[in-house]
Amino acid sequence: MHIHHIAIAVNDLEGALQFYRDALGLEVTERTEVPVEGVEIACLPMGESEIELLRPLDPENSIGKFIEKRGEGIHHICVLVEDIESAVAQLEAQGARMTGEIRTRDNGTRYVFVHPKSTRGVLMELYQKP
Amino acid sequence: MHIHHIAIAVNDLEGALQFYRDALGLEVTERTEVPVEGVEIACLPMGESEIELLRPLDPENSIGKFIEKRGEGIHHICVLVEDIESAVAQLEAQGARMTGEIRTRDNGTRYVFVHPKSTRGVLMELYQKP
Repeated sequence: MHIHHIAIAVNDLEGALQFYRDALGLEVTERTEVPVEGVEIACLPMGESEIELLRPLDPENSIGKFIEKRGEGIHHICVLVEDIESAVAQLEAQGARMTGEIRTRDNGTRYVFVHPKSTRGVLMELYQKP
Repeated sequence: MHIHHIAIAVNDLEGALQFYRDALGLEVTERTEVPVEGVEIACLPMGESEIELLRPLDPENSIGKFIEKRGEGIHHICVLVEDIESAVAQLEAQGARMTGEIRTRDNGTRYVFVHPKSTRGVLMELYQKP
């Protein structure tokens, strides 16, 4: 189990890259629009984790509304787990609540979000590789 | 360079440990009050990083006020760098702003915070080992 990524919601992706890429010196390994999730994503690995910049494609979607309400900043952290079903079972047995069901992306990755009420205000994604 | 820790500000450290230790299964490797910083800290390693839970010793200090204003949640992320002076010089050359000078703790670690205005809303600590 380790931190897979820290997702940062931003309105201005180019401006964000001026800090994370140009100033901090991270490399952009992926940059793509993901219409199904309503975001443009830039991934910048840092050690075993990544900084993931998320720009909402529509100011009315969940990332857009997050920024409108709280300003740009950390949207969620993602924890890589080996077995997402057993992780969820273990968390729920201890009273933690998910925001929904485990979902599967086209590429086979599986994910679920732990509700911030269970984590002391941190939206936490659990993520399992295909 | 990697993510050294993610610091989460909490009012109820025992309640937070019920999630991060008991439910998520992380181990508490350190738990201590740091009066000079106004917090009780619990460290829970996760891969090469740590979850750091911060409980304010005084609701009127900066962590206490953070919680009062924004609720419990991620307070800052910390990035381990090899050479903090050259990291700061590189960031400042690109227009990034620190919240203050580089400081040194009694144990020899050195740290500085990058202003959230420069990072798209993320309070980012840079940290160098002794």
